[in-house]
Parts: sequence; C-alpha cells; structure tokens
Amino acid sequence: MTKTPPRAPFAYDGLDRAIHEKARLGVLTSLMAHPRGLAFVDLKTLCGLTDGNLSRHLQVLQEAGMVEIVKGYERNRPHTQCRLTAAGRQRFLDYLAVLEQVVRDAAAATREGSGGSSAEAPADSLRLRTA
Amino acid sequence: MTKTPPRAPFAYDGLDRAIHEKARLGVLTSLMAHPRGLAFVDLKTLCGLTDGNLSRHLQVLQEAGMVEIVKGYERNRPHTQCRLTAAGRQRFLDYLAVLEQVVRDAAAATREGSGGSSAEAPADSLRLRTA
Repeated sequence: MTKTPPRAPFAYDGLDRAIHEKARLGVLTSLMAHPRGLAFVDLKTLCGLTDGNLSRHLQVLQEAGMVEIVKGYERNRPHTQCRLTAAGRQRFLDYLAVLEQVVRDAAAATREGSGGSSAEAPADSLRLRTA
Repeated sequence: MTKTPPRAPFAYDGLDRAIHEKARLGVLTSLMAHPRGLAFVDLKTLCGLTDGNLSRHLQVLQEAGMVEIVKGYERNRPHTQCRLTAAGRQRFLDYLAVLEQVVRDAAAATREGSGGSSAEAPADSLRLRTA
C-alpha cells in the first residue's frame, strides 16, 4: 500500500526510525564515544535528558537490540551502565552514512537553488492562476 | 519540568521537529534545489511518497510557515505548485548546521570509540554486578 516508487532520490529510507529521533541521536553518539559504556547519570547529563525521558529512549534502543543495560552496584549504591551492542554500533554507522548523504544533498541543493541552474527552466515556464 | 541541564553537548535542541522527519527532510531538500517551486506530482516522485503522505507533510510545513502551496491550473488541468518561503529556507539552513554538527560529533565519537582514548579509563574501572 505504501510502497516506495523506484528511483526516489530523496526518499531516505535508510533513516532508521529507531535512531532518527533527536534524543536517541544524542544517546547513540555518546555511547559510540564510550564503547565500554556510560553510567545512566552521565548519559543523562551529556544528552540533557530527564530520568524519565532517558529511560524511555533507552527502552526503545534496548528493544531494537542496539543497547544493553546492566543494572548493578557500584560502592554499594545502585548503578546502571549503558552500552552499545555490536549490532547497534553497525546499525548506527549505517544510519550515519545516510545522514551524511542528506547533508551532502542539502548542500548541493543550496548551491543549485542559489545558482539558478538550467534544471529550473521547466518550473519557470509554469504559469499558475491562484485558485 | 523538562528543563535541559546546561552544557549538554549531545542535546541537539536545534533539531527542529517540524523538519527532523525523514519525509519532510526529503521534501525540503527537493524544494531547496528548486527555489521557483516544484509541482506536487514531481515532489511526490522525488521523495517516494504517496499523495496522502505528501499532503500531510506539506500541511505541517505550511502551518510552520516554511512552505507555500499555490493551487491553480496548467493547460486547463488542476496543478499544485509548492515552494519554500524565505523563512523556511532560513530555518532549513539553521537546521542543516545542527545536522552537520551531529555528523561531525558522531564521526569524532567513532574515532574516539575505536581508539580507546584516555577518557575511557573511568568507565573501565567500573565493576558491575548483574542485578
């Protein structure tokens, strides 16, 4: 029903919905830099999230198999450690390749749009009457 | 209630929700390349969207003041033309600056994560017991 027509250069199907949420982008970037994991409290500070929000986003990432969460104790106090899984790392890298493509396309579009390339001619020839 | 703590380097507050949706990213990139506008049918093909999906996303962008939609006639047939507004163009450029930062941060995180920087030492010293 919602199949994507072929050759849609701006469909960006690779922008994985589990990742393409701004809080989760921050969480994954933080965890990528810390392959041995980050404490929940440190992740919260890095990403500017509340306890509730971070818990919710970690749950999405855990259910997607991208993050593992280890609850334990550190100096007799409860401590939660969060890590990227190997699959999560690979999936985030795949997503980033698409995100880089978006940035490249948009930069090219900005140049084309400013320069008034010959591709603009057909649009220019349109004569519309406001309905 | 949900205030952001200061100095949260991965909060990415600039990832404007009206823009940060994969279909709308495609729509805006397409329109950026065509400042004189695109026909609804061409935009649909470029972005791989159905009529219903494209209409819904254009409505969000129109309500945000980023896109203007002109309904008219072309050779006696109904024709809908879509254009970025000046404000929409600026807002998309601002968003793209943040998106580039995400890509840069993630690339740096990938390097740090692979290299095992000295910043990893504290995480390494954690000794967790599985709950």
